Amino acid sequence: MGGTTMASGGQYDRHARVQASASAFALDIVRRAAEEAALSPPSEPIALADYGSATGKNSLAPVAVAVEALRARDPRPILVFHVDQPENDFSTLFSTLRSEPQSYSLGAPSVFGCAVGRSFYEPVLPTGAVSVGWSSAAAHWLSRTPAALTEHLWAPTARSPGAAPFAEQARRDWHSFVRLRADELRPGGQMVVVVATVDEHGVCGGEHVLDGLDHEARRLVSAGALSHEEYGRMVVPNFFLSRPELEGPFAHPELRGRLELIEHVRVIVPDPLWASFETTGNGAAFGAAFVGWLRAFSESCLFGALGPGRSVDERRRLADHAYGELGDEIRRQPEAARCAWRMAALRFRKR
Amino acid sequence: MGGTTMASGGQYDRHARVQASASAFALDIVRRAAEEAALSPPSEPIALADYGSATGKNSLAPVAVAVEALRARDPRPILVFHVDQPENDFSTLFSTLRSEPQSYSLGAPSVFGCAVGRSFYEPVLPTGAVSVGWSSAAAHWLSRTPAALTEHLWAPTARSPGAAPFAEQARRDWHSFVRLRADELRPGGQMVVVVATVDEHGVCGGEHVLDGLDHEARRLVSAGALSHEEYGRMVVPNFFLSRPELEGPFAHPELRGRLELIEHVRVIVPDPLWASFETTGNGAAFGAAFVGWLRAFSESCLFGALGPGRSVDERRRLADHAYGELGDEIRRQPEAARCAWRMAALRFRKR
Ligand SMILES: C[S@@+](CC[C@H](N)C(=O)[O-])C[C@H]1O[C@@H](n2cnc3c(N)ncnc32)[C@H](O)[C@@H]1O
Ligand SMILES: C[S@@+](CC[C@H](N)C(=O)[O-])C[C@H]1O[C@@H](n2cnc3c(N)ncnc32)[C@H](O)[C@@H]1O
Repeated sequence: MGGTTMASGGQYDRHARVQASASAFALDIVRRAAEEAALSPPSEPIALADYGSATGKNSLAPVAVAVEALRARDPRPILVFHVDQPENDFSTLFSTLRSEPQSYSLGAPSVFGCAVGRSFYEPVLPTGAVSVGWSSAAAHWLSRTPAALTEHLWAPTARSPGAAPFAEQARRDWHSFVRLRADELRPGGQMVVVVATVDEHGVCGGEHVLDGLDHEARRLVSAGALSHEEYGRMVVPNFFLSRPELEGPFAHPELRGRLELIEHVRVIVPDPLWASFETTGNGAAFGAAFVGWLRAFSESCLFGALGPGRSVDERRRLADHAYGELGDEIRRQPEAARCAWRMAALRFRKR
Repeated sequence: MGGTTMASGGQYDRHARVQASASAFALDIVRRAAEEAALSPPSEPIALADYGSATGKNSLAPVAVAVEALRARDPRPILVFHVDQPENDFSTLFSTLRSEPQSYSLGAPSVFGCAVGRSFYEPVLPTGAVSVGWSSAAAHWLSRTPAALTEHLWAPTARSPGAAPFAEQARRDWHSFVRLRADELRPGGQMVVVVATVDEHGVCGGEHVLDGLDHEARRLVSAGALSHEEYGRMVVPNFFLSRPELEGPFAHPELRGRLELIEHVRVIVPDPLWASFETTGNGAAFGAAFVGWLRAFSESCLFGALGPGRSVDERRRLADHAYGELGDEIRRQPEAARCAWRMAALRFRKR
């Protein structure tokens, strides 16, 4: 699991503008969830859960929207559970909650953030406890790497070579994720999940984002700096499901009676890094921003998979080299890194 | 605040046998608290809070005892909130909860650990949420260093030179701590706090534990390796209150009507490191164990206070030197490090 943990020390947050803009369209959706969700009995705090929070910066806006909607209904204390893997950098999360000017807990003495360090593919909170759930850019991370991917770093869609085991794992993981959240929601509680998806042509709009890095990794293999075995182990375990696949669990006999899918909103997200580049024309800045974003989510799974004999310094040096070269490449060919992510937001209700 | 954070990466836990044995006498007391505490409404999880958890190993036994007593009364899910400073190593805490054989959450699918990274001298949980509270070896850490202590590293009792501002700060902090917990307890909820204390002669039984290190630090000053200013900033911000001082808040007009002090148990704790030494006669092992324990709680406040120009490596080298010399010294004179801590456990109830 550690392999899919985001960069620590605020590095993920500094480079998570892409994820922020990819979930911004869902802020209205989480507001509706908070307006309609069933609450705990009057004497008890209201529980909100954020599944896959990383170090928290991108959770501030959706949680603030939900808190505002809940506050309009009820003055009670609110507990916000930020769930991520045990290896996540929770100290940065807590300092973000405390110090970021946009933090939902500043000037809100009755909103309390806390953390759960456990995989969201297991139960992480008491049955029936959660009034409002949120998860963004997290549930498309698989619970494990289901098969070796010896010829590539990534197989994010059904059209990617070698993707079949990833697709299968993603369908299972998504079913588990939805079933577990159905347990944790209170009856009448609501949840919004934002994930990358593919459109009716099977396109996710970012299938090429690891191509340049793949090229650099192969060059390291040719140069003898990485072994074939190491390259074979390097993989980013994402897979992006289609509309029918995402809706599958809600029609499944096990869940049909327990959950109701209320909305499924699908968008193509304009690339925020590209938009800056169009304004400034600064290719070097675009390359740096792209590589910063890519590195923050991929370094730990890719370079953490190198041979156990590698020191931390060696891993870092190899990563510095590969991401560095990639930055130069993108400065020369910015168009190659432009994305148009297909994103889906599903809002559902526990019956 | 960062200054009083315990060592990370499991180092605190590996050296926290002294704290474990200093709170073991309170396990029966926390059992009684859990047997008698008022619980949440039947549909809601039961909340337990652990204030000053560090990386969690020493929380496992008291939480397990409380969970067992609660389970005997009620099958509902239990949420355990581990509170510590934002800088605490929460990843180690979560991996301890998941993997330690004695973890209360192994084989207990309905007990959920979570973390709050916030100073317990502020509100950290919703008003009226907590059924059972626990805090061990934490509330004798001050909220801040109230004054420079230029001639020593520590002023833990009223008899220590320069202690007056520390005593004053400790009384204020203790009052705040109790008042804040009174807010967080639900009516009928109970809490047990274990702290070091002084007996009727003003003795805590460990006043000498920093003497050897103080000596090494002064030698570093004489040798020019530490500046006078740096030495002046080095301080471990603890202060140990007496029986009447600990009972003070419960008689204070602000709290008298809200809290009832049920038990105040006071013990002298046999030194577990010394007991091993008596069995084995191994002075080097005793020195290493003593220094490991001392370093795990004091390195961050003492060597974190050095001049801002010091690199991480320099701080570590100076600390290695000082704690290393101390180990040699104690091997030669084990008796000088023997402790007989006076500990107090207070059990109280929210009316
Ligand atoms: C790309 S980040 C998204 C962070 C944030 N929600 C956002 O929108 O920017 C994905 C997060 O999901 C977390 N994650 C992935 N798999 C997980 C799992 N099985 N359990 C808990 N968290 C997981 C990762 O650790 C990471 O912090
Ligand atoms: C000696 S450790 C005790 C850990 C554990 N309870 C035990 O009995 O071994 C003291 C803990 O209290 C925490 N602590 C000190 N001041 C604190 C504060 N103001 N807020 C929260 N935690 C604090 C420290 O960070 C540290 O982890």
